[in-house]
Amino acid sequence: MDVTPPSTSLSTTARTRLGRLRERARLDRTALYEVLDAGMICHLGVIVDGAPTVIPTGYGRIGDTLFVHGSTANRGLRAAAGAEICVTVTHLDGVVLARSIFHHSMNYRSAVVYGRSRVVDDPGEKIDALRAISERLAPGQWDVARPPNRKELAATTVVAVPLGEASVKVRQGPPGDEDADYALDVWAGVLPVRQIFGEAVPDPLLRAGIPVPPHVARRWGTP
Amino acid sequence: MDVTPPSTSLSTTARTRLGRLRERARLDRTALYEVLDAGMICHLGVIVDGAPTVIPTGYGRIGDTLFVHGSTANRGLRAAAGAEICVTVTHLDGVVLARSIFHHSMNYRSAVVYGRSRVVDDPGEKIDALRAISERLAPGQWDVARPPNRKELAATTVVAVPLGEASVKVRQGPPGDEDADYALDVWAGVLPVRQIFGEAVPDPLLRAGIPVPPHVARRWGTP
Repeated sequence: MDVTPPSTSLSTTARTRLGRLRERARLDRTALYEVLDAGMICHLGVIVDGAPTVIPTGYGRIGDTLFVHGSTANRGLRAAAGAEICVTVTHLDGVVLARSIFHHSMNYRSAVVYGRSRVVDDPGEKIDALRAISERLAPGQWDVARPPNRKELAATTVVAVPLGEASVKVRQGPPGDEDADYALDVWAGVLPVRQIFGEAVPDPLLRAGIPVPPHVARRWGTP
Repeated sequence: MDVTPPSTSLSTTARTRLGRLRERARLDRTALYEVLDAGMICHLGVIVDGAPTVIPTGYGRIGDTLFVHGSTANRGLRAAAGAEICVTVTHLDGVVLARSIFHHSMNYRSAVVYGRSRVVDDPGEKIDALRAISERLAPGQWDVARPPNRKELAATTVVAVPLGEASVKVRQGPPGDEDADYALDVWAGVLPVRQIFGEAVPDPLLRAGIPVPPHVARRWGTP
């Protein structure tokens, strides 16, 4: 795939330049936004005491900045503050069943973001970041739920990483088998995988007479 | 939660001892197996050129050994060979909608495995590992697809990590709000999230007359 104009292209560094399977790479910023904006959790990679640590957590995006948050007491997040981090978002779209074991694969969309993080200290930016994180997981809730108070804000660390160095990979479609294997009497194709929402389950402690709000109810059944 | 007998308990080290939210920790080995055996992809954390890198990839388990594999040309996998790695498997089970933004959360099951990896060189163990990885993603396919040949095996690196140091976290159930917030006129509850399989899509190049095999067809609609 050709590199799109500089204004929308992602930097290509040694670690984001795909050595293999170049056809899976997407080099435009729009593809990065699409992968990030379709997810609810990321996997945050940090080095803790010299060892890699991978933590699932929520995230949000504002423009070309990615935010992750967590308790100020969280070891991984403490290690992430001001450090080189990696944030990966993956969507599994299908199991690719080939005629050979070797060519079994997955259909997926993934974004891997690398960068040095900074702790978000500015109160305005922190609120904006928390809103972005909240809206990613639970769109519409920011407008109806009680906002964070001073104590809650103090108990929450938000770190930001620029969307400067990232790699986006997308694999879709049928298996690619060896020529000779197409003659085999083996079924091949794709088993699609989707993430869906179930029907909202009210908190047993919910006060009577509060219906499921439309912004929650309408997610039911959607991917 | 009490620690189960030593034979089935997970080691508790500084990084697997939960500082917060201890009630989310599961310390028995069965819980670890359950989380690992319910997934299709893991996020592999490695240090590449001094920076953390998180790669989504397939995995498999045999007893107390976890295997991940990839192309011998894959930078991340090369860095993982013989190094300290972290393998995280996460299942998102629900969006937890609270009366306050702060108490929004996710229902999830996650396993984080830490350890020094070793490259699997023994041909028998390598085949066993590849079978375990294949069966995790595509159960039943190992028995019907063409097995890996010598060239394919040489192009594949498998690394093993012992299930010695791991942390399992599970959060399920309704939100936990601040006492005062239960009086708010805000709906609260859980929006369940599930991963399902769609209907199998045959390869356009599939030879005529090969039906979807039962071991593939029966996954349709299942989580």
